[in-house]
Amino acid sequence: MVELKFHCCMPMFIARQWIRHRTANVNEYSGRYSLMPMLFYTPSAEQLQTQSPVNNQGRSGQTVELAKYESAVARWNGIRERSREAYEWLTGEEIARELARIDLPLSTYTQWYWKIDLHNLLHFLTLRVDSHAQWEIQEFGRVMAGMLERVAPLSYEAWLDYDVCGTRMSHMELEALRRLVKVQGEGLSSQAGQVDGNALAELGLSGREARELLQKLAPKERPSFTLDASRGLPGEHFQERFSQAVPKGDRLPEP
Amino acid sequence: MVELKFHCCMPMFIARQWIRHRTANVNEYSGRYSLMPMLFYTPSAEQLQTQSPVNNQGRSGQTVELAKYESAVARWNGIRERSREAYEWLTGEEIARELARIDLPLSTYTQWYWKIDLHNLLHFLTLRVDSHAQWEIQEFGRVMAGMLERVAPLSYEAWLDYDVCGTRMSHMELEALRRLVKVQGEGLSSQAGQVDGNALAELGLSGREARELLQKLAPKERPSFTLDASRGLPGEHFQERFSQAVPKGDRLPEP
Amino acid sequence: MVELKFHCCMPMFIARQWIRHRTANVNEYSGRYSLMPMLFYTPSAEQLQTQSPVNNQGRSGQTVELAKYESAVARWNGIRERSREAYEWLTGEEIARELARIDLPLSTYTQWYWKIDLHNLLHFLTLRVDSHAQWEIQEFGRVMAGMLERVAPLSYEAWLDYDVCGTRMSHMELEALRRLVKVQGEGLSSQAGQVDGNALAELGLSGREARELLQKLAPKERPSFTLDASRGLPGEHFQERFSQAVPKGDRLPEP
Amino acid sequence: MVELKFHCCMPMFIARQWIRHRTANVNEYSGRYSLMPMLFYTPSAEQLQTQSPVNNQGRSGQTVELAKYESAVARWNGIRERSREAYEWLTGEEIARELARIDLPLSTYTQWYWKIDLHNLLHFLTLRVDSHAQWEIQEFGRVMAGMLERVAPLSYEAWLDYDVCGTRMSHMELEALRRLVKVQGEGLSSQAGQVDGNALAELGLSGREARELLQKLAPKERPSFTLDASRGLPGEHFQERFSQAVPKGDRLPEP
Repeated sequence: MVELKFHCCMPMFIARQWIRHRTANVNEYSGRYSLMPMLFYTPSAEQLQTQSPVNNQGRSGQTVELAKYESAVARWNGIRERSREAYEWLTGEEIARELARIDLPLSTYTQWYWKIDLHNLLHFLTLRVDSHAQWEIQEFGRVMAGMLERVAPLSYEAWLDYDVCGTRMSHMELEALRRLVKVQGEGLSSQAGQVDGNALAELGLSGREARELLQKLAPKERPSFTLDASRGLPGEHFQERFSQAVPKGDRLPEP
Repeated sequence: MVELKFHCCMPMFIARQWIRHRTANVNEYSGRYSLMPMLFYTPSAEQLQTQSPVNNQGRSGQTVELAKYESAVARWNGIRERSREAYEWLTGEEIARELARIDLPLSTYTQWYWKIDLHNLLHFLTLRVDSHAQWEIQEFGRVMAGMLERVAPLSYEAWLDYDVCGTRMSHMELEALRRLVKVQGEGLSSQAGQVDGNALAELGLSGREARELLQKLAPKERPSFTLDASRGLPGEHFQERFSQAVPKGDRLPEP
Repeated sequence: MVELKFHCCMPMFIARQWIRHRTANVNEYSGRYSLMPMLFYTPSAEQLQTQSPVNNQGRSGQTVELAKYESAVARWNGIRERSREAYEWLTGEEIARELARIDLPLSTYTQWYWKIDLHNLLHFLTLRVDSHAQWEIQEFGRVMAGMLERVAPLSYEAWLDYDVCGTRMSHMELEALRRLVKVQGEGLSSQAGQVDGNALAELGLSGREARELLQKLAPKERPSFTLDASRGLPGEHFQERFSQAVPKGDRLPEP
Repeated sequence: MVELKFHCCMPMFIARQWIRHRTANVNEYSGRYSLMPMLFYTPSAEQLQTQSPVNNQGRSGQTVELAKYESAVARWNGIRERSREAYEWLTGEEIARELARIDLPLSTYTQWYWKIDLHNLLHFLTLRVDSHAQWEIQEFGRVMAGMLERVAPLSYEAWLDYDVCGTRMSHMELEALRRLVKVQGEGLSSQAGQVDGNALAELGLSGREARELLQKLAPKERPSFTLDASRGLPGEHFQERFSQAVPKGDRLPEP
């Protein structure tokens, strides 16, 4: 069995989604034992979008005007400044760390070691590079897919072909296709005709299912998650950055 | 969560396949503690088929001549008669049951309570009504699907539509379909052409994958596992039959 | 199988510990889809304690002077006021909720339905009423144990006797006891002697293990988690409170 | 995570117990695809014991007279000779292997690759070297424990100290001990007295629990599962033996 182990840093609102995948072994940096680095995630202007009116849980693709973005950033900075001050004061007063942390924002970075076998990793990546996932966790999925490509290129290609760019078809969807395509010899040939929206409904597809069938058959680009190795940074870079962001006023617990 | 609990009796060679599904809770009749009923499974003449030359692990569909079937049955009966005699003698001598049973044939019936939630049951049934499973366990799958229909008809219908009669399509399979079918308005229409065996190979489908694609698009009957309730027998019938088949020479352990 | 389903509300820093128990079925209120109620947890003065110098991850039992507590509360209130303002402004501007929430503090309440079978619940409760767990999650454990007592009193009593007030003993610990206690007839009798710290070390117990053995044999009160039913509040009370704490300036997504 | 992979051969009645441990990855030799070697397990005279009157599922420790053992062996040989003849005839007639095997006795050897992590292996071994397990699977447990000692001696020793020779104590058992032993300084000392059978009952121990407590405190030898490496045989030895025991009249499936 191939197992992969990742050292990951992510904002806590992402950690809360990620942890729901229960087939990995997780060893998280403990805010009860250790001091948290004061590092926070700030969305880019491009990502600050309105609520999606379609799926009701993602973003719409529609960014907001720059002034609003700047106003949001100012709010975030204000909250974080106060949170940092409170955390440094509380830990400086030697308050229990498990309490000192309770008003850190969800944008605070945490980190963990995350070990998973290849089979379950592919399942995780399929869900996480999907457009329905929160964009920030998609980003993690894309980078991890690129890492996978470097160590297991054949599995990566098969995953793209069978999972990411593949799909499931129900009996009703196949019935629609059988009206337009038939087996001929050792291949397929089309048979003239069409299956319009009404016909799809008669076959038993709901409105949403009909829209999804059209999406499945629309032209689809095979994505690439290849990493630009020149943009990589050594682990020490992040270790240093974390280490410097830890409050300094506190005495570390004696070993 | 909907959970279903089945009281199942099956030959041990089937039990050994069945137990591999690990998402159920199993409580099996213990041959260490209890006396085994002397009940054995005998395949019908129709089922005594030669080894499949295609998938190398199933049967070919080709039955054998009657004389051979009768010869097989005679052998089975001879083995079972000796096994039964040995079991009755050993348990009559109060030999530990865990040893008395060791030469019972794999065709001996065992029984268990098997509890599973709906989600995992559907997964089990999908695998077990599949034509690649051993025919005898398919039979259990079909009857259990029929039982499911009686208590959860909507789940049963959805399972037929999405799992049993649905399929997965890879990127390469979808690419083949995209050459013959296009989205038009809110429906699909065919575009004249064909994708022959060579074209499928060029798209990246292996020979086996190409054959499977043709099977997926060939006309397919939606199966029915509806039970004929008039053929059902009460649980007491089987309990009685088991009870009578237990060796009688042995003193039961004191409670 | 007995299953219990709880509707739980807890601060997110507790939710992050709780979710690590992977044997339950969790259905959490989604901050991507729904508006979060602006409800935050505030520790009492009694609970604001310094970091434990012993186990390095809990609190010491030592509270801080009142002025410090008030200073902490003032900081928390400041952070929460800004977080609430930002959340209301962002959602009022129809920013995607998955982003509007990212600076809510970890003290913000979330809620979930949590379903677990009895066996796994007992395991969860054993870990969570333990003094090494964070005090706030102990409180949840104690209340849930009290709920369990009301519906499964025999299981609850057995859990107290065998798990909470029971312990494991190693070979070395048993060897220490065998020097002081011997089997006599159908009971036990003491044999004069003592096993001092050096003797424990010679038997192979580390310093920590020796201290733990003494704790195991020290007099121990059997705890009670019986609930005072008169202090219970109906579910509607909390539903109402949550509902009122949800920002009002936002238009709800159309169904 | 340390993982261990075993290539195991065992009679099918043992395989049926073993497979109940669900935390391992199993890859079993398929009797649907491959021909089964005609190898059978025969208990020794020492092991052919009567049913235990105590635990109702094991053996009593009481062997039977030699004539009975010889009579049992004669019966086993008769059954196996017929089973082998039937299997060779059926496979020689190219009957599907999944049916040809159905009257092989449970004493027939099967084999599998069995991969498990250290944590779960220790749990498996604790259950399987226990005196309540069937003696034959205890033997596998003991040999595997000896293999573990060779590759992970520290884990093996800790497993002996904490699991095999350790135990759990309930509140009632600890209360009995607290009457005879008290904490004194950094050690323990006895206090004169005894807790007889009645007193144990008054403390809440059932008759079985009282007997178990006495067993826990009785002197206990720390077992050793150290292997005598000089008795080991190379894997090729068994491979050769299996290969020679496979029926020869059958044509192997074409690749």
